[in-house]
Amino acid sequence: MEQKIPVAVLAATGSVGQRFVQLLDQHPWFEVVALSASDRSVGKPYGEACHWILTDPMPAWAANMTVLPTEPEAIHTPLAFSALPADIALSVEPAFAAQGTNVCSNASAYRREPDVPILLPEVNAEHIDIVKTQRQKRGWKGSIITNPNCTSTGLTVAMSAIQKAFGIRIAFVVSMQALSGAGYPGVPSMDILDNVIPNVNGEEQKVEFETRKMLGNLVDGSIELADFGISAHTNRVAVSDGHTVCASIELQERVEIENVAQALAGYQGPEISRDLPSAPRPVIQLRSESDRPQPRLDRMTGKGMTTVVGRLRPDPILDLKMVVLSHNTIRGAAGGSIFNAELLVKSGLLQA
Amino acid sequence: MEQKIPVAVLAATGSVGQRFVQLLDQHPWFEVVALSASDRSVGKPYGEACHWILTDPMPAWAANMTVLPTEPEAIHTPLAFSALPADIALSVEPAFAAQGTNVCSNASAYRREPDVPILLPEVNAEHIDIVKTQRQKRGWKGSIITNPNCTSTGLTVAMSAIQKAFGIRIAFVVSMQALSGAGYPGVPSMDILDNVIPNVNGEEQKVEFETRKMLGNLVDGSIELADFGISAHTNRVAVSDGHTVCASIELQERVEIENVAQALAGYQGPEISRDLPSAPRPVIQLRSESDRPQPRLDRMTGKGMTTVVGRLRPDPILDLKMVVLSHNTIRGAAGGSIFNAELLVKSGLLQA
Amino acid sequence: MEQKIPVAVLAATGSVGQRFVQLLDQHPWFEVVALSASDRSVGKPYGEACHWILTDPMPAWAANMTVLPTEPEAIHTPLAFSALPADIALSVEPAFAAQGTNVCSNASAYRREPDVPILLPEVNAEHIDIVKTQRQKRGWKGSIITNPNCTSTGLTVAMSAIQKAFGIRIAFVVSMQALSGAGYPGVPSMDILDNVIPNVNGEEQKVEFETRKMLGNLVDGSIELADFGISAHTNRVAVSDGHTVCASIELQERVEIENVAQALAGYQGPEISRDLPSAPRPVIQLRSESDRPQPRLDRMTGKGMTTVVGRLRPDPILDLKMVVLSHNTIRGAAGGSIFNAELLVKSGLLQA
Amino acid sequence: MEQKIPVAVLAATGSVGQRFVQLLDQHPWFEVVALSASDRSVGKPYGEACHWILTDPMPAWAANMTVLPTEPEAIHTPLAFSALPADIALSVEPAFAAQGTNVCSNASAYRREPDVPILLPEVNAEHIDIVKTQRQKRGWKGSIITNPNCTSTGLTVAMSAIQKAFGIRIAFVVSMQALSGAGYPGVPSMDILDNVIPNVNGEEQKVEFETRKMLGNLVDGSIELADFGISAHTNRVAVSDGHTVCASIELQERVEIENVAQALAGYQGPEISRDLPSAPRPVIQLRSESDRPQPRLDRMTGKGMTTVVGRLRPDPILDLKMVVLSHNTIRGAAGGSIFNAELLVKSGLLQA
Repeated sequence: MEQKIPVAVLAATGSVGQRFVQLLDQHPWFEVVALSASDRSVGKPYGEACHWILTDPMPAWAANMTVLPTEPEAIHTPLAFSALPADIALSVEPAFAAQGTNVCSNASAYRREPDVPILLPEVNAEHIDIVKTQRQKRGWKGSIITNPNCTSTGLTVAMSAIQKAFGIRIAFVVSMQALSGAGYPGVPSMDILDNVIPNVNGEEQKVEFETRKMLGNLVDGSIELADFGISAHTNRVAVSDGHTVCASIELQERVEIENVAQALAGYQGPEISRDLPSAPRPVIQLRSESDRPQPRLDRMTGKGMTTVVGRLRPDPILDLKMVVLSHNTIRGAAGGSIFNAELLVKSGLLQA
Repeated sequence: MEQKIPVAVLAATGSVGQRFVQLLDQHPWFEVVALSASDRSVGKPYGEACHWILTDPMPAWAANMTVLPTEPEAIHTPLAFSALPADIALSVEPAFAAQGTNVCSNASAYRREPDVPILLPEVNAEHIDIVKTQRQKRGWKGSIITNPNCTSTGLTVAMSAIQKAFGIRIAFVVSMQALSGAGYPGVPSMDILDNVIPNVNGEEQKVEFETRKMLGNLVDGSIELADFGISAHTNRVAVSDGHTVCASIELQERVEIENVAQALAGYQGPEISRDLPSAPRPVIQLRSESDRPQPRLDRMTGKGMTTVVGRLRPDPILDLKMVVLSHNTIRGAAGGSIFNAELLVKSGLLQA
Repeated sequence: MEQKIPVAVLAATGSVGQRFVQLLDQHPWFEVVALSASDRSVGKPYGEACHWILTDPMPAWAANMTVLPTEPEAIHTPLAFSALPADIALSVEPAFAAQGTNVCSNASAYRREPDVPILLPEVNAEHIDIVKTQRQKRGWKGSIITNPNCTSTGLTVAMSAIQKAFGIRIAFVVSMQALSGAGYPGVPSMDILDNVIPNVNGEEQKVEFETRKMLGNLVDGSIELADFGISAHTNRVAVSDGHTVCASIELQERVEIENVAQALAGYQGPEISRDLPSAPRPVIQLRSESDRPQPRLDRMTGKGMTTVVGRLRPDPILDLKMVVLSHNTIRGAAGGSIFNAELLVKSGLLQA
Repeated sequence: MEQKIPVAVLAATGSVGQRFVQLLDQHPWFEVVALSASDRSVGKPYGEACHWILTDPMPAWAANMTVLPTEPEAIHTPLAFSALPADIALSVEPAFAAQGTNVCSNASAYRREPDVPILLPEVNAEHIDIVKTQRQKRGWKGSIITNPNCTSTGLTVAMSAIQKAFGIRIAFVVSMQALSGAGYPGVPSMDILDNVIPNVNGEEQKVEFETRKMLGNLVDGSIELADFGISAHTNRVAVSDGHTVCASIELQERVEIENVAQALAGYQGPEISRDLPSAPRPVIQLRSESDRPQPRLDRMTGKGMTTVVGRLRPDPILDLKMVVLSHNTIRGAAGGSIFNAELLVKSGLLQA
């Protein structure tokens, strides 16, 4: 890439926004030229407006950048990464798309729209094509492409490897989700010390829908939801980063656990996704220890982009049980949106 | 009760042993006359031999009691509470039973024996009758009666209310278990801070077996396992006390969630169990908030003996989802064994 | 007491307000007749307006009480407990005092006023007399009496025992404070998991001032600050309740550590304080183990009202080192204000 | 360095041993050729003998290395890193030194010997010269050089900057120490969840001695302890890595806080230490935020080798207060020993 593509980060001061800034530092294709935030931050240097909570220090270029308002009048990049809350994304993201910005969004606002893809390049790269329908139908020069909620992310990668090999009939999944998934300030410490919160608002519905959309087929420019049953319980636990999901799965055919292990460990994802800068290496790491994956030890596998699967074993009712771990703010949020943007560029769809 | 029944606590210095001592303090029926522990503690005052880890102070009578060896030659009470590890329980508990001691055991060693009941008085009080078979078959004057592992405890209470009303076909359960379940010193702090451990050794097999035994029928002096499918994932989380279980359940008939709610909230258990000193009041507390039960807030409900159920809602595949919470070292361990002993006395089976 | 004194709780829905409600449940002298909160709660039942975070359930009488505005026009009790934030307390508490309400306040707003006592009945009960000066000078029928910040509380009780016996020249103190001290929602969980925050805003100044005021002498109706040097560092740690303070102290005379131990263990406080309903029993518990006091194990000593001291040992520079623990929302906040109100009543100063 | 120096790690399977393996991976000067452990691991591949607890994966070269016994007969490298427990180090380390191995030790066994240096190259590099006395006196071809306990490490670096500029008269220090400092399994999780342990066995004596030895002068081949008073309280808190120390310090002369800030921020350490591969860059990072340093955010500063200082402010009794943070298993243990070995090589003292 001779010249880097200028990009913006919308809502750059929050916890996901900070991850965008961190992960875009020295990105080989993209260069951040604009950071936006809410009114009270506009006009300040990012380094002053932002209460940085990541352990890597804030990049120097970011610290000195002046915060812009989150408005298409102020930001004219071909690509923007959105860490906006869903209610604001609802009105702001289309305004950017209309003016020609491709919005790679972490927000849930448009995930249920039939012409908006929910993308995991190592799972359903071909869904990127809906962008054409989207532009045509909505008269946009840009687009909105989304990544799934963080709990669906790793789970769908693991399910994809299994579904492509053997087909899936039913999945029961129970999450134990990290605190960073709730943003900042997020969960009060008094609520989670020595505790579990047995609900994450709206998350179960997202998991039950988004997995089926991503694993569905593209038919005539729209997506048919995958035809399997899925039931989710979602919980918050005292973990900083890394969502752990226990899953029991029924396959469409009976196979040995060993075959499932091979399908997971050897999974590569669509060819177009494999050499992108943010592609996970490996896509899936299958662990054989009886007590892995663990968020503290395994979340940074493959720079936080790899899906880690362990405890693969027979299920006494269905076919198999497993545990899936994925870094919720890297693979499951900012890193995922960036990976999607790379796919958009590689697919030649950055320009309408 | 005019005169209290003298009782012993076997393995009294460990975390469950301490709970026995605490819960037996001022018990209306039982009086602790013997505390046993391993060789290096024998002969010392309990207050010196025991590294007390509970927040209530050690009872004064216990502090001054001299620790005895865990041998039937040294202890001759009609009733003993066992907090022994499974491998030691295997040889020691029968020796006590043979000499006439009724061992109310928290150990797993004999739970799979067909003539040894796993008891939850509010669930299967009638299983106490197997003690007669046990004595006859083994030639014991005493007996061994067990309580289930701590994860099965609350789950089985909740399932019992549902099973008796509507029948259960299938249950998927995922636990998030407290640290005290692993004893002391138990889980190293470095392993659980900012972490989840996605396995508790041997626990899944116990849950998948013990629930079916307790909910099974007593036929001709032995227990037929209940005829439902059950699949369990078990996890360790950073919680001190209180096991949380997410469950998805398929019933034998379709009913409204409201009916299930009534069955749970109104559940009373067998009549014989209701007025025992340790009987939970209420047996089940059904909570309607979207984020309960939580271990920190709900584990002490009914002095730690009540099973707390919440988030009752339809399951997209089966019939219902719910979350069950139970205090693992009170209802799920020491308190459960004491409750069982009360049932034994009330049933008139203390004497062979 | 033939008839209970009607009392109000101001700002009853916050974390300290909830403690007031809990601790006033079945109080032998006081009966809660009014609960106030901010505008968005006014008119609602307390049970609905309040997100209850304590482990004991909300008392039934409180759940059904209608929340009132925090205004003297709406509340006319002779006694009110204030859990107001300092900035609101500044204007609201004098308005109540003017109309005849005695405000026992947990707020810092008036602690630095020379005619407002900071009271710990087991330390400086005689300071209650400044209320007379206060009423005269300000023309109030009621009064404002305060309890110290939660970090100063246990520390001052322990220092008082030492000061009265031997005199204190210098104290270096470092706190490790619980999360509940920051209110609710308070400290974000992402900020404290696997972390220490080496500052609690404004706390060091409070500790350095309030200890000297409480340990000072009442001279001509006003308080002379005690004449010792004190330096404080304050930190936040991942503990739910219970502030731990490490202290190094120089005495006015050289004494054996054993004498200091006796002074601490035998400390009783002024006679008027000893039989009040909330009086700690014992005032100070001195522990001899090498690893106590610990917040999880010791904070509920004496129903959370006792100051626990441990690790008493020589200091290589000054005279002694010790560790002091006190429950920050019971002895250090709501329980302390109630104890102060009891002293006011007992002193015959409830009426001007 | 044309050819790397072969080195051994003694007690390589424990938590500090693992850090040695991790930090020596791709070290520019050293190449690990031997890993030792206790009898039950000898003969196994390291990858199998070691329960790896670090988040970076075990280096492949280490996984395949066969574990050797910790005996000079089995290991003949010129340099060995010791993570041995103190009681074993006592007999084993001299045996290695006698045969010609230079033991860079993390153990406390020999720190109090007058001819054994406790080294922090950025503080007292010149103390390396005692090795000559040591060899002469003991007739060793090798040597023992130690790094201080982890709590003294960062504290001494910060104190060194201040002492060299202004002199120190008195220091009061209180630590809040991480769990990894206790090794593995170390602190039971039940002991630290929602808790503080107000003692770390033997640590206070170490801090009060080792700081004075390191900041002392080398006079006639032996070290005179520095002439200041120091008093330490040491505590364990729920933090994985990173020891935080609050310090109040009296200087030998009155200076402005601003001058102290300059002395800290500009501190460089002895010239010989500056370009060593493990030299911290910067030596000290001085932070100006009111709530830093924090272990979670700051422990990895300078790859875990930098001492982070914050909250520099006047002390109401002495001259200044500050908070010091240092990574206890990197700078305070394995990384420190490696840094010392680099100094030994650079000083030309590897060979007797």
